[in-house]
Amino acid sequence: MASSVVVANGNLNPNDTRGKTITCKAAVAYGPGEPFVVERILVHPPQKIEVRIKILFTTICHTDLTAWQGENEARRAYPRIFGHEASGIVESVGEGVSDMNEGDLVVPIFNGECGDCKYCKCEKTNKCERFGVDAMKKVMVSDGATRFYTMDGKPIFHFLNTSTFTEYTVVDSACIVKIHIDGSNGDLNRNIKRLTLLSCGVSSGVGAAWNTADVHFGSTVAVFGLGVVGLAVAEGARARGASRIIGVDINSDKFIKAREMGITDFINPKDDERPVYEIIGEMTGGGVHYSFECAGNLNVLRDAFLSAHEGWGLTVLVGIHLSPKMLPIHPMELFHGRRIVGSNFGGIKGKTQLPHFAKECMNGVVKLDDFITHELPFKEINQAFDLLTTGKSLRCLLHF
Amino acid sequence: MASSVVVANGNLNPNDTRGKTITCKAAVAYGPGEPFVVERILVHPPQKIEVRIKILFTTICHTDLTAWQGENEARRAYPRIFGHEASGIVESVGEGVSDMNEGDLVVPIFNGECGDCKYCKCEKTNKCERFGVDAMKKVMVSDGATRFYTMDGKPIFHFLNTSTFTEYTVVDSACIVKIHIDGSNGDLNRNIKRLTLLSCGVSSGVGAAWNTADVHFGSTVAVFGLGVVGLAVAEGARARGASRIIGVDINSDKFIKAREMGITDFINPKDDERPVYEIIGEMTGGGVHYSFECAGNLNVLRDAFLSAHEGWGLTVLVGIHLSPKMLPIHPMELFHGRRIVGSNFGGIKGKTQLPHFAKECMNGVVKLDDFITHELPFKEINQAFDLLTTGKSLRCLLHF
Repeated sequence: MASSVVVANGNLNPNDTRGKTITCKAAVAYGPGEPFVVERILVHPPQKIEVRIKILFTTICHTDLTAWQGENEARRAYPRIFGHEASGIVESVGEGVSDMNEGDLVVPIFNGECGDCKYCKCEKTNKCERFGVDAMKKVMVSDGATRFYTMDGKPIFHFLNTSTFTEYTVVDSACIVKIHIDGSNGDLNRNIKRLTLLSCGVSSGVGAAWNTADVHFGSTVAVFGLGVVGLAVAEGARARGASRIIGVDINSDKFIKAREMGITDFINPKDDERPVYEIIGEMTGGGVHYSFECAGNLNVLRDAFLSAHEGWGLTVLVGIHLSPKMLPIHPMELFHGRRIVGSNFGGIKGKTQLPHFAKECMNGVVKLDDFITHELPFKEINQAFDLLTTGKSLRCLLHF
Repeated sequence: MASSVVVANGNLNPNDTRGKTITCKAAVAYGPGEPFVVERILVHPPQKIEVRIKILFTTICHTDLTAWQGENEARRAYPRIFGHEASGIVESVGEGVSDMNEGDLVVPIFNGECGDCKYCKCEKTNKCERFGVDAMKKVMVSDGATRFYTMDGKPIFHFLNTSTFTEYTVVDSACIVKIHIDGSNGDLNRNIKRLTLLSCGVSSGVGAAWNTADVHFGSTVAVFGLGVVGLAVAEGARARGASRIIGVDINSDKFIKAREMGITDFINPKDDERPVYEIIGEMTGGGVHYSFECAGNLNVLRDAFLSAHEGWGLTVLVGIHLSPKMLPIHPMELFHGRRIVGSNFGGIKGKTQLPHFAKECMNGVVKLDDFITHELPFKEINQAFDLLTTGKSLRCLLHF
């Protein structure tokens, strides 16, 4: 293998790397919650309908955090390369890839779009039978093998169709989207940073408001959990002309930033003995049109459900729920006319709809810059995780 | 009081009864599950915005059955007059009633429509803040008293805004709908019998298919529980052009009638070890567009939910769930794109929409006659309950 290995040192020329194994830096997780080891790994070339990407920026999302912590034992797989929110450049493409070329600017999408399955052919869903989000998946679809190996040849598992905590990654072409960015304003680098956020968190939030809930002008909205996704929901609702956006979080420090981003009212459940839904009911004359659960907590979910107005209120489930407990809603409560739906990746079909969606967001509809609170070199990834777990960062961009 | 009491003996002239207390036959329940006592009671005149009706036909619905059995202790109230599916003639109206007159043909609606509250003014719901369905309610809204009394003056409680197991009843005008029936074909009596079914069961089922699910032409449908409501759902789906309607029930005797009524496929869960949702998934290539839970059973509800196709399938909850258990659905399952909503009285606003809805149904869109399997004189009400509890009847019409 040694003769076909190219060592990544700055920008490589595809003519030197195409079809060859690359050695590059990656952050490898060896066990649940164990600090990432930034080390050199081997990245094999892309196989049929796969793409190898040089990552430009990657960030950490809560899904990486919980997966890394290994709270769900069934999903554990080590050593592994986490990460799924990123931007990059196509280094080389495998056989059969026709919609992108070396050098294209792309974002990985954890919820792929094969374009051929019954879901991809239906306008009602962004599910994909072959490349949809799958927290259990750890190898490539085509051959059940990995494309990452330790320097002594042990396989390193993939994560969420993407694995972006590495200088180079290999993904199925269904899980990568080519995005055109207008570099004419001379600020290409800044635009690529903004684009990175649309790979997961901001798109999931804005899309939940635009696609799943279809927030209407003048409506009232409650957002439970003011992390990136919750704030992005609020941005999406603000862009749609919501008249009132109520933010709920147990960390009041988040309210300063959130107010700048258009949230109009705040509730810290710790400051009031009444249930949050009662407070929201009083504030809004019976409840909001749309409530969004972005906290991944069942008690919060029930509060969000009861905060929606009877008769027409819609609760959108965005948070990830790891507890095995069932929905905290009684069947008869559905007769009151409140509805609840889930929103995965903001209801956006990645390959076909994300380019337009990203353009809308990049054009200033959503204040993307406000989400980037920190930047660090990739080797400081453990520090970036600390910033997230302590609630100090929204998004910390890691660059190579 | 004696001087103002009029004894009902056949058809009374309103000139003799208006403003007076009437004595008439009623079926009084004195305790949970105790046989009804058909006896004479006192029916007071209607108060402000109330209407007194002479019942022509009444039937027994499962909600009467479970309420009579008193399974929910909090809802118990005796003595009581149950019954909510009926047709009748306005005997007299209270002060302020402007939309109906003595002699009008009407049906009572357990889910009223005041026309003034925020729900009544919104096209998205058939909730009503003041006269919506309320299983806890047992007295009239205007004065918190009853209009029924035993012959020795003890109050008899109301039920579900209606109380139709009596020759005369008093209801709020929000809970009564005037229906025009074309008697020109000389079959007025038969049409009134048909109309009786639209007071609750058939409207709830057909409306769930038409309004709540909005079943589309060529779609696939699964109906769990083949009582009147389930069969009415199937009728509604058939009228909309559903290509396949799968009926599920643990009583195969029901399949004969159900096949006549347009259900195309049948599953008896007792005949197969596999879960019903698996069988339906195989039959339909992944699941149906719409599933309807009309059994009031949580295990059935989960089967119905999983029988809907991922990505777009909708489960409509129609059955009444008395168990305190929560929805048997995990939050993460909502991310698969299945949805669940409740349907109360078929999503029909009673006062404003039922007249048109009834006309559609009466015009032959729905085979109403097929639902009437028995007729008995009112005094045989206990026998009619037996027919329902033993699954022998769909609807048994009781006449005075």
